[in-house]
Amino acid sequence: MRNYETMASNEIRELIRKQEITGPTAGMSKGFTQANLVILKKEHAFDFLLFCQRNPKSCPLLDVTEPGSFIPSKLAKEADIRKDVPSYRIYRDGVNTEEVLDITEYWEDDMVGFLLGCSFTFETPLLESGIPIRHIEEKCNVPMYKTNIQCEKAGVFEGPTVVSMRPMSHEDAIRAIQITTRFPAVHGSPIHIGDPSQIGIADISKPDFGESVTIKEGEIPVFWACGVTPQAVAMQSKPSIMITHAPGCMFISDIKDEKYSIL
Amino acid sequence: MRNYETMASNEIRELIRKQEITGPTAGMSKGFTQANLVILKKEHAFDFLLFCQRNPKSCPLLDVTEPGSFIPSKLAKEADIRKDVPSYRIYRDGVNTEEVLDITEYWEDDMVGFLLGCSFTFETPLLESGIPIRHIEEKCNVPMYKTNIQCEKAGVFEGPTVVSMRPMSHEDAIRAIQITTRFPAVHGSPIHIGDPSQIGIADISKPDFGESVTIKEGEIPVFWACGVTPQAVAMQSKPSIMITHAPGCMFISDIKDEKYSIL
Repeated sequence: MRNYETMASNEIRELIRKQEITGPTAGMSKGFTQANLVILKKEHAFDFLLFCQRNPKSCPLLDVTEPGSFIPSKLAKEADIRKDVPSYRIYRDGVNTEEVLDITEYWEDDMVGFLLGCSFTFETPLLESGIPIRHIEEKCNVPMYKTNIQCEKAGVFEGPTVVSMRPMSHEDAIRAIQITTRFPAVHGSPIHIGDPSQIGIADISKPDFGESVTIKEGEIPVFWACGVTPQAVAMQSKPSIMITHAPGCMFISDIKDEKYSIL
Repeated sequence: MRNYETMASNEIRELIRKQEITGPTAGMSKGFTQANLVILKKEHAFDFLLFCQRNPKSCPLLDVTEPGSFIPSKLAKEADIRKDVPSYRIYRDGVNTEEVLDITEYWEDDMVGFLLGCSFTFETPLLESGIPIRHIEEKCNVPMYKTNIQCEKAGVFEGPTVVSMRPMSHEDAIRAIQITTRFPAVHGSPIHIGDPSQIGIADISKPDFGESVTIKEGEIPVFWACGVTPQAVAMQSKPSIMITHAPGCMFISDIKDEKYSIL
């Protein structure tokens, strides 16, 4: 197996386009920013753009394509969002009806692509600060949970905030808050730390998306707003069609993570 | 004269609504966030929202009203953006045709209000750090200039970035960069420092908006992206109607400045 971690973003995208990579992208093209994807028809684009503006921690926008265009020109001029994500989910009237590897045949001339920051971006500086990341250690997808924190509504879009969770020592948690504060474009600081029940998570061992990870004795769970939020919102808001990445299967851009650091 | 600096935001808005205050608001209701205003018809709302997303330093969005609503509910639940700004400019097809104190008769049922962060917000922490602000010392409006830095286009909206300028010592300039970096929602860090000609300003003593201030021997001009940018953009993009605040005459919100600090 080739070393995906050290490959350039365009090389990884080529393997994805050839469908040689069809799963989670965490740790690939280390240092290049990964993004969540939401595709909607133009008629819903204003409402969704406003939804992102009102919910910047879960939906930090990195790029919005021109209506009808499948090129995310700010993130990767040669990319095609119809083919360059390992796996897509199609939501029809709020129901995830299909999971596919290419959406060319689903694309319509009035569609708009929204690319949202992803917490994988801040995992590199966390690792570099010596903070272990459990789902990378356990080689699985990050656990994600629906919470009782409602997003701020915009037009038809409303629903719960989804969070990703990383367990760590209390000492590392403080440092992780400092580090992620530097990256508001990729969810920024955590939205909760500690007791999962306070944000409506009944069982931390049963994530709504992704996979469960070990929480060791003495560790505290740290929760960040997650770019899967639009998928939970789609389920509740039921636009006629909405296409997203499959959880953990991100778009890999040509932008270096450090570009999104504000300090 | 009453002390506007220490008055609460709702009290100042009442005086503005009664048209007892009709000029620049710098220094009023100290500690409460002030905002730039742009009002457009719904047909242009998506393009303008995207414009803000693509140009976050000049157009950092603090609130967007529901289409047809004149209440900026995130910033001040009891306010009315048709009356609560000291002075408004009406742009028709890109031309500033009128300057009025109340826009109730101009309001249409499909209008959307956009409230953008304002550099007045970071003046309080600058002052508290002992950095003098020349236009406050000289009791005039902050000088603002059109630059040769083009905004990123979105739909019909395109045009030059407008900057506000504050002259200061080199030592204070470094500290000012650190402080304003903490406030991305109100333009954040400067976009230029030093030689005005590098950003297309031919004569620093002749601002395009606001008033000229003294630059003392040994001082360096520091330039921040400015919320007047949409007015320069309106001149170039020519929407049929666009209503804005008059430069320096801001909307005063009920939100404390510190809420917008990220560190």
